[in-house]
Amino acid sequence: MYMHNKRLQYTVHVAEPNPQLAVLLLEQFGGPQGELAAAMRYFTQALAEDDPGRKDMLYDISTEELSHLEIIGSIITLLNKGTKGELAEGMIEAAGMRLLTGNSTSQTEAILYGSGTALVNSSGVPWTAAYIDTIGEPTADLRSNIAAEARAKMVYERLINVTDDPGIKDALTFLMTREIAHQKSFEKALYAITPNFPPGKLPGDPAYTDLYFDISQGAGNASGPWNQGAQWEVVDDRDAQSAVDGGDGSASVELSKTQKAALQAFAARTASNPEGDPLTGADLGAGPGAGATKNPAAEP
Amino acid sequence: MYMHNKRLQYTVHVAEPNPQLAVLLLEQFGGPQGELAAAMRYFTQALAEDDPGRKDMLYDISTEELSHLEIIGSIITLLNKGTKGELAEGMIEAAGMRLLTGNSTSQTEAILYGSGTALVNSSGVPWTAAYIDTIGEPTADLRSNIAAEARAKMVYERLINVTDDPGIKDALTFLMTREIAHQKSFEKALYAITPNFPPGKLPGDPAYTDLYFDISQGAGNASGPWNQGAQWEVVDDRDAQSAVDGGDGSASVELSKTQKAALQAFAARTASNPEGDPLTGADLGAGPGAGATKNPAAEP
Amino acid sequence: MYMHNKRLQYTVHVAEPNPQLAVLLLEQFGGPQGELAAAMRYFTQALAEDDPGRKDMLYDISTEELSHLEIIGSIITLLNKGTKGELAEGMIEAAGMRLLTGNSTSQTEAILYGSGTALVNSSGVPWTAAYIDTIGEPTADLRSNIAAEARAKMVYERLINVTDDPGIKDALTFLMTREIAHQKSFEKALYAITPNFPPGKLPGDPAYTDLYFDISQGAGNASGPWNQGAQWEVVDDRDAQSAVDGGDGSASVELSKTQKAALQAFAARTASNPEGDPLTGADLGAGPGAGATKNPAAEP
Amino acid sequence: MYMHNKRLQYTVHVAEPNPQLAVLLLEQFGGPQGELAAAMRYFTQALAEDDPGRKDMLYDISTEELSHLEIIGSIITLLNKGTKGELAEGMIEAAGMRLLTGNSTSQTEAILYGSGTALVNSSGVPWTAAYIDTIGEPTADLRSNIAAEARAKMVYERLINVTDDPGIKDALTFLMTREIAHQKSFEKALYAITPNFPPGKLPGDPAYTDLYFDISQGAGNASGPWNQGAQWEVVDDRDAQSAVDGGDGSASVELSKTQKAALQAFAARTASNPEGDPLTGADLGAGPGAGATKNPAAEP
Amino acid sequence: MYMHNKRLQYTVHVAEPNPQLAVLLLEQFGGPQGELAAAMRYFTQALAEDDPGRKDMLYDISTEELSHLEIIGSIITLLNKGTKGELAEGMIEAAGMRLLTGNSTSQTEAILYGSGTALVNSSGVPWTAAYIDTIGEPTADLRSNIAAEARAKMVYERLINVTDDPGIKDALTFLMTREIAHQKSFEKALYAITPNFPPGKLPGDPAYTDLYFDISQGAGNASGPWNQGAQWEVVDDRDAQSAVDGGDGSASVELSKTQKAALQAFAARTASNPEGDPLTGADLGAGPGAGATKNPAAEP
Amino acid sequence: MYMHNKRLQYTVHVAEPNPQLAVLLLEQFGGPQGELAAAMRYFTQALAEDDPGRKDMLYDISTEELSHLEIIGSIITLLNKGTKGELAEGMIEAAGMRLLTGNSTSQTEAILYGSGTALVNSSGVPWTAAYIDTIGEPTADLRSNIAAEARAKMVYERLINVTDDPGIKDALTFLMTREIAHQKSFEKALYAITPNFPPGKLPGDPAYTDLYFDISQGAGNASGPWNQGAQWEVVDDRDAQSAVDGGDGSASVELSKTQKAALQAFAARTASNPEGDPLTGADLGAGPGAGATKNPAAEP
Repeated sequence: MYMHNKRLQYTVHVAEPNPQLAVLLLEQFGGPQGELAAAMRYFTQALAEDDPGRKDMLYDISTEELSHLEIIGSIITLLNKGTKGELAEGMIEAAGMRLLTGNSTSQTEAILYGSGTALVNSSGVPWTAAYIDTIGEPTADLRSNIAAEARAKMVYERLINVTDDPGIKDALTFLMTREIAHQKSFEKALYAITPNFPPGKLPGDPAYTDLYFDISQGAGNASGPWNQGAQWEVVDDRDAQSAVDGGDGSASVELSKTQKAALQAFAARTASNPEGDPLTGADLGAGPGAGATKNPAAEP
Repeated sequence: MYMHNKRLQYTVHVAEPNPQLAVLLLEQFGGPQGELAAAMRYFTQALAEDDPGRKDMLYDISTEELSHLEIIGSIITLLNKGTKGELAEGMIEAAGMRLLTGNSTSQTEAILYGSGTALVNSSGVPWTAAYIDTIGEPTADLRSNIAAEARAKMVYERLINVTDDPGIKDALTFLMTREIAHQKSFEKALYAITPNFPPGKLPGDPAYTDLYFDISQGAGNASGPWNQGAQWEVVDDRDAQSAVDGGDGSASVELSKTQKAALQAFAARTASNPEGDPLTGADLGAGPGAGATKNPAAEP
Repeated sequence: MYMHNKRLQYTVHVAEPNPQLAVLLLEQFGGPQGELAAAMRYFTQALAEDDPGRKDMLYDISTEELSHLEIIGSIITLLNKGTKGELAEGMIEAAGMRLLTGNSTSQTEAILYGSGTALVNSSGVPWTAAYIDTIGEPTADLRSNIAAEARAKMVYERLINVTDDPGIKDALTFLMTREIAHQKSFEKALYAITPNFPPGKLPGDPAYTDLYFDISQGAGNASGPWNQGAQWEVVDDRDAQSAVDGGDGSASVELSKTQKAALQAFAARTASNPEGDPLTGADLGAGPGAGATKNPAAEP
Repeated sequence: MYMHNKRLQYTVHVAEPNPQLAVLLLEQFGGPQGELAAAMRYFTQALAEDDPGRKDMLYDISTEELSHLEIIGSIITLLNKGTKGELAEGMIEAAGMRLLTGNSTSQTEAILYGSGTALVNSSGVPWTAAYIDTIGEPTADLRSNIAAEARAKMVYERLINVTDDPGIKDALTFLMTREIAHQKSFEKALYAITPNFPPGKLPGDPAYTDLYFDISQGAGNASGPWNQGAQWEVVDDRDAQSAVDGGDGSASVELSKTQKAALQAFAARTASNPEGDPLTGADLGAGPGAGATKNPAAEP
Repeated sequence: MYMHNKRLQYTVHVAEPNPQLAVLLLEQFGGPQGELAAAMRYFTQALAEDDPGRKDMLYDISTEELSHLEIIGSIITLLNKGTKGELAEGMIEAAGMRLLTGNSTSQTEAILYGSGTALVNSSGVPWTAAYIDTIGEPTADLRSNIAAEARAKMVYERLINVTDDPGIKDALTFLMTREIAHQKSFEKALYAITPNFPPGKLPGDPAYTDLYFDISQGAGNASGPWNQGAQWEVVDDRDAQSAVDGGDGSASVELSKTQKAALQAFAARTASNPEGDPLTGADLGAGPGAGATKNPAAEP
Repeated sequence: MYMHNKRLQYTVHVAEPNPQLAVLLLEQFGGPQGELAAAMRYFTQALAEDDPGRKDMLYDISTEELSHLEIIGSIITLLNKGTKGELAEGMIEAAGMRLLTGNSTSQTEAILYGSGTALVNSSGVPWTAAYIDTIGEPTADLRSNIAAEARAKMVYERLINVTDDPGIKDALTFLMTREIAHQKSFEKALYAITPNFPPGKLPGDPAYTDLYFDISQGAGNASGPWNQGAQWEVVDDRDAQSAVDGGDGSASVELSKTQKAALQAFAARTASNPEGDPLTGADLGAGPGAGATKNPAAEP
């Protein structure tokens, strides 16, 4: 079960309210790379995990992420605190308030949430569980966690770059650092599984594991360790890139007699006659005279 | 620019229509780990990428994923082909059709999409760009790509496990294998960047990089390379886990005089009196007599 | 900050795996009236709350809801545990697996989440922060909380009605009871604010506060305390229901000269000629002969 | 303003409750082609419309669609009526109820909505305003309306095909017929604007209006009035399909000196070395021995 | 299968970075009328299409739309290129960056996507497959395509109107023109099906095909070819507009005895007593004294 | 059925166009607390309601909310009217237009909707039926309605605070007042049901109805009528807060022999070795030399 201690994991001092900065920080509160996504990613993995070590680690880290959600939420709340009372008590003139709210997310924060802190991103898009990529296989989920920590680290880095307030910079640096520590833990847990590649149980088909299809061609074609060296066989012939199994590249199915008959009736009813040049709605719509020209749509 | 060749990248033969199996395969068409998500993840990275080698690789692989989207979509289309004509031409009795459609996704496929193939997952949830986690930093995006390929590989593995049709199993194995190959390419591209950890430019704060907070405690507490060894310092004292900066764990802000006054007015207007025991709507609603007992809600 | 104790708030014993029941219980995990919605509703209110008593209460209850999320998630995980290993290790024949997965949500759980527990509802719709209705005014938010607890209580009641497993029934009854207790707390907190109606600061306009518009008319028109008695004035005359301010019921705006000119140009360009009977695409499409009849669309 | 009359626009008699059929009918209640989408599409157009004739028509038809929403909602409500009381009053055994609810949408209807009628589609996906394609230009919006009526007609046709109940069939036929009538009205309104093609004000560039790019090539290449005849010029040479303006097909921008320097720093920091074959995480993960073979991923 | 050529379909030269303009152009990248929606609309139709001519056309045009997605994505990428390096390398002061990001979408592009190009619209809403209206019947889908091209043409026209940069204007004009050409192709394909109206197979009921219900009444009532002329019969009598089948306009169902009993138990338990004037939570909340007045809510 | 009268329920005069204000008002058009949400909440309840008095009330009020939707939509339309023609006819220079559209929602309104009125909120997020919380039990739904009216009242109050235009202020005050009146009606209907608490039929478990868990502890712990007084028993001992049933707080399930074997195979395959310190991808990525230090990630 969860318990709460009124002390934050990290002390926060905000120099002064700043609704514009609050909006940027929403990315780490209700955004796709934010702390709720992290907490829920690891929590859903912890529930299903049967390995005792990883289960413990996932509860440790998911609960720490909840504490980070509380830190970032506290900062945003304080950045919005200046307008909260003034709007609620009607102590500010309309012109000034509209200026303060001249940004679609901060205006929504003010009008809809009363200067509270909502689980939306910096564009005002509500958080969705579609952000969570847990799939229930440790050799894949740990890679997802590594990547998620890398992304979260980057968003904190960018937020630090756009923040002047020293107290906020300090707290963001702590939060960014913890993402690095978490990435290290998830890396250790992944490589403590041997083997862990390819993920899961089924091996690949050796015929296709080392092929690299050079599908994008033209000036700028390049090579690197991802497609050159002993491990790779590059397929750059256009013809050899399709129907690589040696078949004809078609898709076919066996249908029953009734199904065929029904499909033929459908095809007959909806056939587009390939011959002729039927008069169309666009021809009608192009207006008198236009139909006779080649180019009714192009004339001013 | 993109071109299309009418031959598929892999030949597909479907033994017979099977709308139930079609629904499962939708995961890799319009699901979060499916081929559209893969194609769009790498395409959006390709657009922004300035490194010539990676840009080429990202176009190669994203275009191959489009070709995989076409393969999986072709299979689903054929699995649904049996009912398409019969429903459209009204050649099947209602009872039979309702049986065929007794599953929320297959029924939606039939009624809404006319037995076509929609960009939804196996529960019928429409594909959303919220599935894409590109953030514009190669050391993070390549890790996201590695994880995404691992997840996609797993979903193909599960689909192979629930499929009997040998033609479909064969095509799914090809598709699964290509995810392994792509993961290898992305790994090579990541480790061709040195250093690549921590991702991005800013270093972490050394004071917090190696701490492991043992936040989940009780029977089952465990350790492993993610929290033991020379690299780690475990913090398991509850008090030491909060306010780790040495402050008081509070969150504070400086407000202007006007802002303070407005907040005080708001607080006064909305104060909940901590004393007394006000009559409430629930007390009213619990009915006559209930108010006098300790436990109005619990009595049958 | 948050801490975690490996003991659940309530002991759970599940008799045997049952993926179908697991799906129903998802409503209280990732559904709109579920525990994550409750935890996040009260947590976002706690962050913004300045009243010390309510802030403490909101942290107490939101953290308890997280513990409930853990309980319900643990039950669902166990109900899915039977298929988890069998699917992952390929130890079950395809036919059996497809039977097990013959329901859009349970099939998604199996294929996409590997029999894990995802933040979706019983139809597979991902949880969204759009479910949270916090708006930052206590006299409204406490009413939202009261209503949310009432809804959550009802969903638990229905789940108890469809569950046979005594261990699960027992845990669901505990969870249902706590919603009742929480509703009582929120009621006390609301009525400890005086006055709390109307919510907020601005009074209504006395001219319209007690009017009841009988807008739905015909057989079945009824009355009750919501529209009869000294407090209410019923307006049932159709004419008196519109333009109740005594104006003409129009909507008007002052435009600048340039704006008017631009709108007139737009209007002229897009005017539909009210005279005549133009030949249309539908007329063309109805086929030869059809255009001459009154009723081209109705003939078989 | 809107008024309501307790008589439906069409009398409905449902033979007996049938939750499975109810789910199918949800497509026209809360689905993308359903009546709420229709009502809101035309209502949002009516608000912005300045042409008096079209404004009146749009209010007429949008209000009729609301009445259709009421009809379809009434049918669904009655189809669910059988389980409503039994579930609410706990008068049915769990096994029976789980059978009744063995379909993700009907189970959600029962558990979450109490056998009420929710604004979701037949897969349980909530209605979204993203379904509405109004864009504020009559020559486009009327075409959207024509298409929307055609789609809605088709969904009704399919529902009629899967329904046995004569009273429901009768009501669905009425509703389907009205979509035909509405399509006719929108066609008349479109062709009463002359010219109406191309939509909007700007003409196309004559150099590109009549080109048809044969981008998909191979067996099955076909022609028809959409790409043959005097009006069309087919471009099938692969080289001539790209950079059709005669340029080099590149994308370029002028950057300031500072911007260039910053990008170069970024490029240097994140460069993937195209030479060499770095050891990767996948190499590590493939396990001992695997690294030496060409094909670590493919071996069982 | 798909192939990629590094030359764009149209050469693009962007004068200088401009993140604000980039945001507007996002409409055609990740917006509802944008190129991904177009590509996916025609691609999903191509998969299911059995008519050889239309299948070829749909692959031709859907692949061209992918190439347009690449063009518009390339423009947006270049418009954002100025800030990309500066933000990533921390080379810009916070104040300047916050100014650059003072718009909810451009700020999300910068912070979340690292100045990359995301599949969102100009408000930052992620692209969703709910935008796609393919339903698997050519006589409806081709009308949807015609309408979609008309809408896309309009959005390009508006973007051209707000763009100064000649290179971008030029590319947008090319893209706009192609939408006109595509509309023409879809029109030809539709009218090559005879008959194509009403769409689908079932005819309408002649009793209701030509009725026009004048449901919106009052000043401004108008007529035009959509409701006048030989084809139409206008019903403007309010009474004749409801229960048009001649019934009583009710909705009824046959319930079993058990179902009736359960519903009666439910009704009895939840009956609102129509008599009396119960004390309510609002009465309590209006505060002392308020209860005695007629109008507690209206007094300041 | 529904009818429409061209007179609004309230006369509106807008002083002059103002797209910025229009965006704020969108909250009550397409936002979560807006008029469409209200209309659809009560309409879906009306459909399912069997109590004649409440059914009538719900139709009365839901139809009035549609009329309010029309009022607020008319105001927004007029506020956007100034730019509509100018943008459509290309009569405004690009610089000016970009200024007018310098806000993510207003720019979307202009470019995507042609200065029309879309069902989105003030951040541009499309309306979703996920906002509707109807669950089909009157004692819960009426509480939801009371809360919804309270929230809607607050949003109108805030909009009045940021509006200067007297005609709009006047209309908003009417709309706000009606929310108060509706709340009063719903309160009367709720308390006309006796008892109405706890909602639904099942009583709570007396053992847990009056417990208050003091889960958030530390400086700031507080009490009030929500946790003190004769009715409450506070549990503040940390140990007593978990496993409150007296069990061991674990979650357990009985598995079949086959299921156990499969899970063990899964566990063995994916076990993370708790011993040792494996080399990881992060170790590789930290670069040469870094592996030997304790703190590779923390070095500047």
